[in-house]
Amino acid sequence: MLIVKKFGGTSVADKERIFNVARRCIEDYKKGNQVVVVLSAMGKQTDILLEQAREINPNASKREIDMLLTTGEQISVALMAMAMGALGVPAISLNAFQVAMHTTSVYGNSRLKRIDVDRIQSELANNKIVIITGFQGINQLDDYTTLGRGGSDTTAVALAAALHADACEIYTDVDGVYTADPRIVKSARKIDEITYDEMLELATLGAGVLHNRSVEMAKKYGVQLVVRSSLNTSEGTVVKEEVKMEKMLVSGVASDKNTARIAVIGLEDQPGVAFKLFNHLAKYNINVDIILQSVGRDGTKDISFTVNEDNADEAVEIIKRHSNSIKYQKLDIEKSVSKVSIVGAGMMSNAGVAAKMFEALYDVGVNIKMISTSEIRVTVLIDEVHTEKAMNAVHEAFCLAE
Amino acid sequence: MLIVKKFGGTSVADKERIFNVARRCIEDYKKGNQVVVVLSAMGKQTDILLEQAREINPNASKREIDMLLTTGEQISVALMAMAMGALGVPAISLNAFQVAMHTTSVYGNSRLKRIDVDRIQSELANNKIVIITGFQGINQLDDYTTLGRGGSDTTAVALAAALHADACEIYTDVDGVYTADPRIVKSARKIDEITYDEMLELATLGAGVLHNRSVEMAKKYGVQLVVRSSLNTSEGTVVKEEVKMEKMLVSGVASDKNTARIAVIGLEDQPGVAFKLFNHLAKYNINVDIILQSVGRDGTKDISFTVNEDNADEAVEIIKRHSNSIKYQKLDIEKSVSKVSIVGAGMMSNAGVAAKMFEALYDVGVNIKMISTSEIRVTVLIDEVHTEKAMNAVHEAFCLAE
Repeated sequence: MLIVKKFGGTSVADKERIFNVARRCIEDYKKGNQVVVVLSAMGKQTDILLEQAREINPNASKREIDMLLTTGEQISVALMAMAMGALGVPAISLNAFQVAMHTTSVYGNSRLKRIDVDRIQSELANNKIVIITGFQGINQLDDYTTLGRGGSDTTAVALAAALHADACEIYTDVDGVYTADPRIVKSARKIDEITYDEMLELATLGAGVLHNRSVEMAKKYGVQLVVRSSLNTSEGTVVKEEVKMEKMLVSGVASDKNTARIAVIGLEDQPGVAFKLFNHLAKYNINVDIILQSVGRDGTKDISFTVNEDNADEAVEIIKRHSNSIKYQKLDIEKSVSKVSIVGAGMMSNAGVAAKMFEALYDVGVNIKMISTSEIRVTVLIDEVHTEKAMNAVHEAFCLAE
Repeated sequence: MLIVKKFGGTSVADKERIFNVARRCIEDYKKGNQVVVVLSAMGKQTDILLEQAREINPNASKREIDMLLTTGEQISVALMAMAMGALGVPAISLNAFQVAMHTTSVYGNSRLKRIDVDRIQSELANNKIVIITGFQGINQLDDYTTLGRGGSDTTAVALAAALHADACEIYTDVDGVYTADPRIVKSARKIDEITYDEMLELATLGAGVLHNRSVEMAKKYGVQLVVRSSLNTSEGTVVKEEVKMEKMLVSGVASDKNTARIAVIGLEDQPGVAFKLFNHLAKYNINVDIILQSVGRDGTKDISFTVNEDNADEAVEIIKRHSNSIKYQKLDIEKSVSKVSIVGAGMMSNAGVAAKMFEALYDVGVNIKMISTSEIRVTVLIDEVHTEKAMNAVHEAFCLAE
């Protein structure tokens, strides 16, 4: 078997944990498997480097930031190879140049295009464990790029696809994917199996266990993922195309407090108004989430939408700057809101799911400000202060603890 | 003018010093020069990384050590590019892969073979200051290699040669090359000009200002070097082929305490004995310095030689292991010795120089254990405790303070 194993920054934060990971990989190796390990930078190393950069130049070019950050994973992989060496197992570390790991040209948030597998395969053929820097790539200029936060997951999945690996294991500091964040919902339960689409909705909603681009890629190339803990040997959660028939309607509940609502009130009721508004935002790479349009007074209309809280002030600025083309009467911004979502492949064939969620929220007195749905997801926008109460109520309503 | 400027680790140890170096480079850039900057890792970063490696695996492979260490310079160059950006000057950092900087295959102590200059030249043509990682290269396997301690000097000289630079400036924390170490000899004086050969003897003798391989390369390619301080704007020392006629006989005095003497006593007096002895040592890459052979008792001979103190125990081990082929009666090792040398292009045409040195040592009661000479150098081995006294006596005898 060829196994790709990915460990995050906390799993390699110090000497003891590095040896812990090394032993875990060696266990698979000694059973006769070929092992490829993908690592993130140690502990808070990326944040430390970013802070160093910010002190020198708060507006440093993204190209140079990537040049700086990519040292983080290189340190991890070199130390890991040394640890395996100390345990008597031949191992070799490779960075994005050595693999090579080709990405699009954009810095800071690049996408993998192509992975050369020759070097990896020849090192595996030499009976070595191959340890590869996650998160990083090189573009057509031979410059370092990075894949965005959590990009090491994507590196692991892409490697599993390129190498036709038999398994791709993503190790985290939790036991797997839960029906809800266990810090918020005490009765949250670990999910044994989940579909790519469900995982994708959860990842996008900030469940935080997997980088969403990694799930997209796993789905595209049919890479079966296992999310499991680096701290114990429990089974974890399998992410794949089809799951058991007896699956529940709803797989999990997720929340996201990093959201803000912007209301553009008194827009002219003419064709093209929504296009103009969102086109301006798109030009500045501002992702809009839930959109709600309603008829206003005196032949006008109102458009409300949510964006990441980090982008909210910029979005407002952009709209104000273009008030010549986007004619409106008033602009409102509300930051103390959060999204609560239920996700489940079963819900597309069951009409009562959304209603049941709304009922649960009504029962605990939580007002719904906006609603958005997909085939496998229902999201509501509520006051941020009610997030925990809402999640617990919804979790209970769908009996997710059982 | 195209200027290559090299700054060591202490010159970029913190934010303030990084900006100091940035401003210094920008000054040349604003005068219309093309500027290439070579940097070492920040402050004690290399030592910190080595300590991390040692804790994980005291016998880590050199390949992985190089993979680890090369992150040090990459951090320096990225932060420097950001600092120049903050000062409004376009700059770009490049590592050994991006240049590319081709070396021999050996890890930990590689030699530069070839530098691709296309990328550097195109960035210079785009009016950028180009900041390059010193000390590191890549070999034919696409693995990182390092050039050994002080290798950034070599990187700078090699770049100056490859780019046909008009000047190559090596910045250090001292004002230039001195007639003796100012910490030992209070009256030591800065030398304005020195030949490559003299500098080479001084560098090899541990004067510590320039990496000796960088001087060899500068001589080979006729790169005129300037050694100057990064802390002030004084003129420094020019290293070149020919110096002023009125030069003194002796340029400087150097000492090296990192030396040990090994005596192999009672060897058979037959042809091939010395060959066997030094061939075994050469196989293990142990460099032998001064060699002295004398006739022993009863038809035997004795051979004494000096090695780096770090290699002394290993050298003794090797000789013991091969006592079948190297037949001897006794093996002695003495570590508390040091070398004191005088260097000067003028001495080859002046017979009295060595005698004057011996006289100066005799006057202060220092016993000479071994002597070695080259055309431009006289070295003596003495008790380590007398190093300072000997240096001051010799410095004074040749009137180097004047």
